[in-house]
Amino acid sequence: MTEVTKNLKLYTGRSNPELAKKIARTMEVKLGKIKLTTFKNGEIYARYLESVRGCDVFIVQSIAGNVNDALMELLIMTDAAKRASARTVTAVITHYGYSRQDKKSASREPITAKLVANLLTVAGVSRTITIDLHQGQIQGFFDSPVNHLTAIPIFADHFLDKELKNMCVVSPDVGRAKAAKKLADLLGADLAIMHKSRPDHNVAEVTSVIGDVHGKTCILNDDMIDTAGSVDAAVKALKRKGALSVFICATHGLFSGPAYERLEAADVEEVVVCDTVPVPALRQSDKLKVVTVAPLLANAIMNVYLEASVSELFDPEFQL
Amino acid sequence: MTEVTKNLKLYTGRSNPELAKKIARTMEVKLGKIKLTTFKNGEIYARYLESVRGCDVFIVQSIAGNVNDALMELLIMTDAAKRASARTVTAVITHYGYSRQDKKSASREPITAKLVANLLTVAGVSRTITIDLHQGQIQGFFDSPVNHLTAIPIFADHFLDKELKNMCVVSPDVGRAKAAKKLADLLGADLAIMHKSRPDHNVAEVTSVIGDVHGKTCILNDDMIDTAGSVDAAVKALKRKGALSVFICATHGLFSGPAYERLEAADVEEVVVCDTVPVPALRQSDKLKVVTVAPLLANAIMNVYLEASVSELFDPEFQL
Amino acid sequence: MTEVTKNLKLYTGRSNPELAKKIARTMEVKLGKIKLTTFKNGEIYARYLESVRGCDVFIVQSIAGNVNDALMELLIMTDAAKRASARTVTAVITHYGYSRQDKKSASREPITAKLVANLLTVAGVSRTITIDLHQGQIQGFFDSPVNHLTAIPIFADHFLDKELKNMCVVSPDVGRAKAAKKLADLLGADLAIMHKSRPDHNVAEVTSVIGDVHGKTCILNDDMIDTAGSVDAAVKALKRKGALSVFICATHGLFSGPAYERLEAADVEEVVVCDTVPVPALRQSDKLKVVTVAPLLANAIMNVYLEASVSELFDPEFQL
Amino acid sequence: MTEVTKNLKLYTGRSNPELAKKIARTMEVKLGKIKLTTFKNGEIYARYLESVRGCDVFIVQSIAGNVNDALMELLIMTDAAKRASARTVTAVITHYGYSRQDKKSASREPITAKLVANLLTVAGVSRTITIDLHQGQIQGFFDSPVNHLTAIPIFADHFLDKELKNMCVVSPDVGRAKAAKKLADLLGADLAIMHKSRPDHNVAEVTSVIGDVHGKTCILNDDMIDTAGSVDAAVKALKRKGALSVFICATHGLFSGPAYERLEAADVEEVVVCDTVPVPALRQSDKLKVVTVAPLLANAIMNVYLEASVSELFDPEFQL
Amino acid sequence: MTEVTKNLKLYTGRSNPELAKKIARTMEVKLGKIKLTTFKNGEIYARYLESVRGCDVFIVQSIAGNVNDALMELLIMTDAAKRASARTVTAVITHYGYSRQDKKSASREPITAKLVANLLTVAGVSRTITIDLHQGQIQGFFDSPVNHLTAIPIFADHFLDKELKNMCVVSPDVGRAKAAKKLADLLGADLAIMHKSRPDHNVAEVTSVIGDVHGKTCILNDDMIDTAGSVDAAVKALKRKGALSVFICATHGLFSGPAYERLEAADVEEVVVCDTVPVPALRQSDKLKVVTVAPLLANAIMNVYLEASVSELFDPEFQL
Amino acid sequence: MTEVTKNLKLYTGRSNPELAKKIARTMEVKLGKIKLTTFKNGEIYARYLESVRGCDVFIVQSIAGNVNDALMELLIMTDAAKRASARTVTAVITHYGYSRQDKKSASREPITAKLVANLLTVAGVSRTITIDLHQGQIQGFFDSPVNHLTAIPIFADHFLDKELKNMCVVSPDVGRAKAAKKLADLLGADLAIMHKSRPDHNVAEVTSVIGDVHGKTCILNDDMIDTAGSVDAAVKALKRKGALSVFICATHGLFSGPAYERLEAADVEEVVVCDTVPVPALRQSDKLKVVTVAPLLANAIMNVYLEASVSELFDPEFQL
Repeated sequence: MTEVTKNLKLYTGRSNPELAKKIARTMEVKLGKIKLTTFKNGEIYARYLESVRGCDVFIVQSIAGNVNDALMELLIMTDAAKRASARTVTAVITHYGYSRQDKKSASREPITAKLVANLLTVAGVSRTITIDLHQGQIQGFFDSPVNHLTAIPIFADHFLDKELKNMCVVSPDVGRAKAAKKLADLLGADLAIMHKSRPDHNVAEVTSVIGDVHGKTCILNDDMIDTAGSVDAAVKALKRKGALSVFICATHGLFSGPAYERLEAADVEEVVVCDTVPVPALRQSDKLKVVTVAPLLANAIMNVYLEASVSELFDPEFQL
Repeated sequence: MTEVTKNLKLYTGRSNPELAKKIARTMEVKLGKIKLTTFKNGEIYARYLESVRGCDVFIVQSIAGNVNDALMELLIMTDAAKRASARTVTAVITHYGYSRQDKKSASREPITAKLVANLLTVAGVSRTITIDLHQGQIQGFFDSPVNHLTAIPIFADHFLDKELKNMCVVSPDVGRAKAAKKLADLLGADLAIMHKSRPDHNVAEVTSVIGDVHGKTCILNDDMIDTAGSVDAAVKALKRKGALSVFICATHGLFSGPAYERLEAADVEEVVVCDTVPVPALRQSDKLKVVTVAPLLANAIMNVYLEASVSELFDPEFQL
Repeated sequence: MTEVTKNLKLYTGRSNPELAKKIARTMEVKLGKIKLTTFKNGEIYARYLESVRGCDVFIVQSIAGNVNDALMELLIMTDAAKRASARTVTAVITHYGYSRQDKKSASREPITAKLVANLLTVAGVSRTITIDLHQGQIQGFFDSPVNHLTAIPIFADHFLDKELKNMCVVSPDVGRAKAAKKLADLLGADLAIMHKSRPDHNVAEVTSVIGDVHGKTCILNDDMIDTAGSVDAAVKALKRKGALSVFICATHGLFSGPAYERLEAADVEEVVVCDTVPVPALRQSDKLKVVTVAPLLANAIMNVYLEASVSELFDPEFQL
Repeated sequence: MTEVTKNLKLYTGRSNPELAKKIARTMEVKLGKIKLTTFKNGEIYARYLESVRGCDVFIVQSIAGNVNDALMELLIMTDAAKRASARTVTAVITHYGYSRQDKKSASREPITAKLVANLLTVAGVSRTITIDLHQGQIQGFFDSPVNHLTAIPIFADHFLDKELKNMCVVSPDVGRAKAAKKLADLLGADLAIMHKSRPDHNVAEVTSVIGDVHGKTCILNDDMIDTAGSVDAAVKALKRKGALSVFICATHGLFSGPAYERLEAADVEEVVVCDTVPVPALRQSDKLKVVTVAPLLANAIMNVYLEASVSELFDPEFQL
Repeated sequence: MTEVTKNLKLYTGRSNPELAKKIARTMEVKLGKIKLTTFKNGEIYARYLESVRGCDVFIVQSIAGNVNDALMELLIMTDAAKRASARTVTAVITHYGYSRQDKKSASREPITAKLVANLLTVAGVSRTITIDLHQGQIQGFFDSPVNHLTAIPIFADHFLDKELKNMCVVSPDVGRAKAAKKLADLLGADLAIMHKSRPDHNVAEVTSVIGDVHGKTCILNDDMIDTAGSVDAAVKALKRKGALSVFICATHGLFSGPAYERLEAADVEEVVVCDTVPVPALRQSDKLKVVTVAPLLANAIMNVYLEASVSELFDPEFQL
Repeated sequence: MTEVTKNLKLYTGRSNPELAKKIARTMEVKLGKIKLTTFKNGEIYARYLESVRGCDVFIVQSIAGNVNDALMELLIMTDAAKRASARTVTAVITHYGYSRQDKKSASREPITAKLVANLLTVAGVSRTITIDLHQGQIQGFFDSPVNHLTAIPIFADHFLDKELKNMCVVSPDVGRAKAAKKLADLLGADLAIMHKSRPDHNVAEVTSVIGDVHGKTCILNDDMIDTAGSVDAAVKALKRKGALSVFICATHGLFSGPAYERLEAADVEEVVVCDTVPVPALRQSDKLKVVTVAPLLANAIMNVYLEASVSELFDPEFQL
C-alpha cells in the first residue's frame, strides 16, 4: 500500500492521539512525525519533522478537553503545513467544539461555530471531515467541502446485536428529534420525544414525554453527553412514565464536571459513546462502553485521498 | 419624522410590493423611486430615480413566486445601490427562498441556502433582516449581521384571541418540533409531534402521532406551506387519532401547485399565514386568513436605522 | 479516448441541451448524469448522479430563455460540483446574458455583467469559456481565466461558400464597428457603419449609413438579435440607400417578442445565427439558418482539459 | 467653506501637480501637506505631514509620464492614508495609464487595466474618479464605485465658440466610433469613421474613410494622442479625400516620442487636449491648445464629499 | 464627558481586568457590561448585556496566562460585537502572545504571529492597539491600522528619577539591540550588547558581552521576561565583567515556570515590568516593581475614538 | 532532464537577465520565450510566446534599478501567466525592493514592503523565493509560502578561503547585529557592533563601536549597500578604533548615487556583493568583487518544482 499512499500524510494533534493511532492501523499507514510542544508560557509550537511538500495532509484532532488549546493546536499545525507547501490540508475533527453555539439564541451573542469555521478556513484548511455535528447546517458554514459522517449506524448495530425487545428510541429534547427518528427507523423501534415545560409561573420546570414508553426498552440518543444533567433528568422522567429499562447512546462523550458521578448513579443499563473524545480507560466499564469510529474515519480519509466517492460511507438517509 | 429618517431609503422589488407599502405606511416614510423593468429577453433592469449616495438603503423582497427572478432582482438592486454609493444596503427578505436546501442530505447536492447567502454578500448586502428561516443556523451562513425575526408571537396572539379550549400544538415532523414547542409554551398548550414511518418493506408509509391529541383542538404549525401535501396527510392522521378540530398556521404561504385545492378540501377550521409571500385577495376567505408582519418589519428597520437595539423585537426564547 | 478523458466530466444545464449533446458527440464523450428538477415552488434542485471528485467538470449553459433560471441553475450546479470536490469547474457559457449591461450608461444603474461575473466566481467557477461577448472587456470582469471565442470565422466561411459579389459588411451601430471590420477583412469586403441621429428637436430619429452601400450585397453583422427592431430599421435604411440585397448574421439569436414576425416581414435574403441559444426547429427555414458552434466549443474544452494552448482556436486578430 | 470641508483632504502626487492646484483653487481649499521623496535607489517614500484620521482623502494623480512611478506613488500614498486611518481614499486618476490593455487581443497577454484596478483596490482605494477611459467597461473592473466623467462637452463648447461651418466629426478608427458620434450629436455635425485595411497581401495598409468628408471642416476626436503616428496618417487621408480643414481634439495628450514633431508638421488647424496629462508651457501654442478639466473634477470631488448626486456632472448620454 | 464618549464602549476580557479598570478610571468612563462564562466543558461564552449597535467597541485583553483561552475569548467577544452591529472593534492587546514566532527560523514551522493577525482579522477586528511587540514588523501582518505604542519612555522616566550614575543599557541579545539603544539614548547612557557563542564543539555555550560594563550601573532591557533563564545568565555574565550593579526592565512580565525563584536568587537591584500581563500583588516587592501603562493606553484609545492624531503618544524615534 | 522539467518554465524580466541565464545554465533548462516591450509612453507590455497552460512558471526579477518599472513588469508577467492558465507562478525576487519600509517608523507612513507583498498576491503570485530580506519578518507579510534563502554561507566560504587571521565581524548598526552574529559564528570570529549617537544637543552625531576591533581584520556585513554613506563612516570609525584592515560584504549591491566613488575612496581591502542586483562588468575590480547566488537559486527552484524539501538549502540557524 506504500506506493498508493505515498503522498498521504496522517498527523495527530495531542487531544485524541489514541483514535489517530487506531485510524492509522486500520489504514495500514504510519502516523507522520511532528514535534508538538507547549512552552512554559502556554504557547504551542509545532514543527513537521519530515517534508510535506506536495502532500495531502490529514490532521486528526478532537476540539475537546482543553477546547481552546486543541483548536489553536489544530490551527497552528495547519498554518505550518500550508507554509511548508502541503498540497491540501484536511482537518479530521472528531469532535467539533462550540458546535452548540450555532445560531444567536439571544441578542448580542456570537455564533462561535461559524467563527471556528472561519478560523479553520483562514488558517488554510481545505477540507473538513467530521462526525455528528450538533446541527448538519454547520456544513454550510464552510465554503470548502465538508464530509459529515454519522455514528448512528454504529449505534444501530450495537443495539441490534443485543436483540432487545420492544424498543423505543427517545430524543431528549425536540431539537434532536430528527436524529432519534433515524435511529428508530434503523432499529425498527418506536419513537418518543421529551421536552421541558413550566406548568405555571412559580412552578419548577418539568420534563414531559410525548409518546408512549410504558413497558418499553428505551434507548435515549443524543449527539453528546456533557455534564449529564439533562440525561439524568430524562432517565428519571422515563422511569416515572413506566419505562422498563433505559440505554443511552451519544456520539461524543465529553463527561464534564459531575458527569461520571451522575451516570454512575443513574438507573440505566448502559451508556455507549464513541471514541471521538478520549474516555480514560479506568472510567470504562460494563456500564460505560466506548465503540470506535476509527474504521469509519479511516475509510473517509482513504476515499478522500483516492478521490473516490465518499457517499458509500454514509447512507444519505442518515445525514442529520 | 422627516428629519430623522432623512438618510433612510426604503425600496421594494416586484415580488411583494403590497407588504412593502404597508411597512412604509407603518413607518410613515415614502417608498423610494426606482425604475424596474424586465426586457423582452427576460433580463431585469434597475435604476434608482433619486440619489442614494450616503444613505442607508433597505430593499424589501420576497424570494418567492418566480424565485430566481425575485432573487436576481434583489441582487441587481443591491449592485446598483452599492455603485451609487449607498452607505449600507439591508436586504429585507420576507421569505428566504431555497432555505430548505440548508445542508447536504445526500452526496453531491448543493447547499443552495449558503449559495444564496454568498450571492447576496458578493452583490453588496451589508445586513439581512428576515423572518422564520427554515433553520436558524442559516444566520451563520452570513458573516454580516442578520436579524432573524419570528412570527410565532403573532400566531400566539391570533389564537389567544379565539379563547380556544384544550389546545395542542402539533409539529408536522420531527425537524420542526422546536418551533412548535415555542408556540405551545406561549399558548400554554400541549405538544404533539408527527412523523412518517414505514411499518414494513412492502407497506406504504404511515404518519404517526407522538403525544395525545384525542379530543383536542389541534394547531398545526409549520414554517411554510408549499404544495400542502404533507399538511393534508397530517390533518387526516390527526382526525384519525381523534382530534376535535384542526387549525393550521405557517409563516410563509407559498401555495404551489394544488395547494389551494388541497386546503379547500381539507377538514380544517382555519389556515393562517403571514403576508411574507403575497396571497391573492380572491384566495383569502374565512378559511384562509392572512395576518401581517408589517409592524414587526417596520420596527426592525427603524431600529436598525436608528441603531437602537433590535432585541426588544423578539423574545430570545422564540428564536428558532 | 476513454483513458485520456477519464477525468473530464461534461454536463449540461437545461437551457441548451441540444448544443451540449452535439459537443459531446464531437468530443466522443458521454454527457454526465445529473438530476435537475424544478420544484413546484420554482426552486431548482441539482444532484450529480456519479462521483465528480477530483474531476475537471465542464457545464454547458446558455444564459438565455428564462435568463435568471438559467443563471441560477448554472450557479447551483457549480456549488454542488465544488462541494462534491470537483478539481475544477469550467462554465461553458454559450450566451452570456446581461452582457449588454457592461457599464453605467446612466447614474445609479447596476453593472450587471460584472455582477454575473462575481456571482459565478463566488459560486466556484474556476474558468469560463464563452463566445462573442457584447464587449471583449467583460473578460476583465473575471480574475480567473476566460477563453473568449468568436463565431466570426464561421460566418466568413458561410458567406465565402456563397461566392457573393460586391460584398459590403455593415455594422448596425457605431459600437459594433470593430467586429464588422473583422468580418469585412476576412471576406475582403467593404465596410459601412450605421448610426441613428435626430436632425432636429421635434423630428423623429433617422438611421444614417456612413459608407457606400449602393448596388452592394450587404451583410449586416451583430452580436445578437433580440427583438429585431433595430435590424428591421437597418434593413430599410440600407434598401433606401440602394443596397442590392441584405444578409444578416448574428452570433446569438434571442428572437424575443415580435422578432420572428419582424424578420419574416423584412426584405432580407437570409438570417444566419449560431446555436448558442436554441432556435426551435420549426422556426428554422431557408430564410432563417442556424450554424453550429459545437466543433469550436468541443475543441476549446478538449484543449483546456488537455492543457494544450487554446490559441490555435482563435486568430487573435478576430478577438473583439 | 472651511467648516463644510473640514474633513476633506486633497493631496497631489508628483505627476500632475499643476492640475491639482487648479482643482484646489476652484474648490477654495488648500492642498494637504505631504512629504514625497524618491530615494537615490529609486524607491518612493510618502508621509502625510498632518493628521488624516477620519478624513475623506482625495489623491490627484495622472498615471502618465513615468507611468510605473506615478502608479506606485499613488499606491504608496493610498497605503499610508489607509494605515493613518483615513475614512475613505478616493483616487482622482486624471489619466488611467494602461487603459488600452483592457482585454486579451492575443493569447497569453495580460489584462493590465484590470491588474491596475486590482492593485488600487488592494492598496485601499475606496472610490475612483476618472475621465474618458479608453473603454467605459473599465468601470466594471472595480467592485467599488467609479465616477467616469467625460471631457466631450468641453470640446463641444470649444468648437461651438468657433462658429465653424459644415463640420464633420471623424473617428480615427472603428473602436472609437461611439465617442465621435457623441461629439457629432452635440455639435450637430456629420460623422465619418476611418479604418485601416490591406487591399491585397503584398500591398501596404491603407487608411480608408467611411462617410463623406469632402469640403468639410473635420474634427478628429480620440481619447488620447500618444506618438501621433495614427493621427498623422489620418490627417493625410482626410486631406486626400478632400477635407477643407482638420482640427484634432483628444482628452489625454501623452505626446510620446516624435509626437510634437509630427503634430508640428501635420496639416491641421489646431490640436486641443485637456490638462489631464501635463503639457509643458513652452510646447503650447496657437496650434496646440490645452483646456482644463479642473472645474469638472472640482465639482465631482465636492459632490462625492458632500454626498450629493454626481449625476448632474455628466449627461448620461455622453457616457462612453 | 458622557456626551463625548457616548458611542465609546470599553470592555475587558478576563485575562487582565485590573489594567482595564485602571484604563477606564483614567478615561473617566465605565467598563461596559458583558457576560463571560466558561462552561464545564471548557467552551467560552460571551454576551453583551447592553446594545453596542453603531458603537466603537474597544476590548482590552492580554494574550497571556492561558494563552489560547485568552486569544479565543478575544475572538469570540469580537464576533459577538460584530454580529451585534458594532461600528468598529478595536482590540487593545496589552500583550501579543505568540509574538516571538514571527518568522520561520526552521523549515516547516508555522508563523504563528501572522496566524494570530489573520484570526483577529477574520473575526472582525478593525484596528489593533498594542505595546512593544517582539518585532515592529508584526504591524505589517495586518492590513488594518495598528497603533504600536512603547513603554520605553516609561522606563526612562523610572530610571531618571533614581538619578543613577554611570549607566549602561544592556541588550540581552543581538536581536534586541535596537530597543536597548533607544533606551540608552533617552537616558544618555552607554550601550552594551550580549550574545551567546560556543568557543568549540564540545564546549558549553558562553555569554559574551560586547562593550564595556566595568564599574557601571547596568540596566538590562528586554521586551519580555518569560522563564527568566536568559536573564539569570545575563546578570551573572555582567557581574563577571565587573558590573557595579544590575537593574532589569522588561515590558511584559510573563514569569513562567521558575521565573520568580530565579529572579529572587539573582544578584539584581530591581526588576521593573509593566502591567500588560497581570503580576499577583503578593509577588510584587521592593525588588519586583510594576509600573502601569494605563495612561498610555487610555490616551491612545481616546485619540482613536476622537479621531485625533495618535502620533503625539509616541516619539517616532522610539518605534521599535 | 527534459522529461523531468517538462512543466517547469523559467522566465526572466528585464532587471537582472544575466543572473537568470546563469540559473538556467545551472539547471540545464532553457529560459522561456516571452516578449517584453516598453512602449514610447512608458507602459510595459508582456506576452508569453509559448503555452504555459498547466505549467509551473518561475519568474526571475530583481526589484532594483528602476524599482517601480521592475516591480510592475513582474506584476504584469504574473497577470499574463495566470490568465494563460499557468498552474503556479513563483516570483524569484533576487532583491526585494522597498524591504526597508517594513514598519511605521513615524506616524502616517506607509508599510511599503507589505504593500508590495499584497500587490504580488493580488496579481497572482503563488509562492516567493527571495534572499536576505532586510528583516525575516517580511515572510509573514505573505499568506502564501516564502522560501527565504541567505547568502551568508557564501560569504563565509569566501572569507574562509582567504585564511585571514584575527577576524572580527562588524555590524554597521544595532538592527543588523543578528545577521553579523551568524557570520561571526560561521567564521569563528569575534563580533562588534556599531551605533550612532549624539553626545550632546548641539553636537554632531558620532559613530561608536561596541566591542574590541583593535588590531583586528574587520569584516563589515550588511544586507545591502545603497549610497555607501554609512559604510564610509563605519570604515573611518573602525580605523580610528585601530582596526588592522576592513573587508565589506553585503548581499545586495545597489550602488546608488555616489556609492562607487565613496567605495573607491574608502580605506577597505575588498567589497564583496552578490549578483542579486546587476553590477556593470566595468565597475568590477580586485577591490569590488561579485559572487554568484545562481547555484543557490537554481537549487531552490528545482526543489520547489520537484516538491522536495527546500530545507537542505539553508541551515535554519542562518535564517535571519
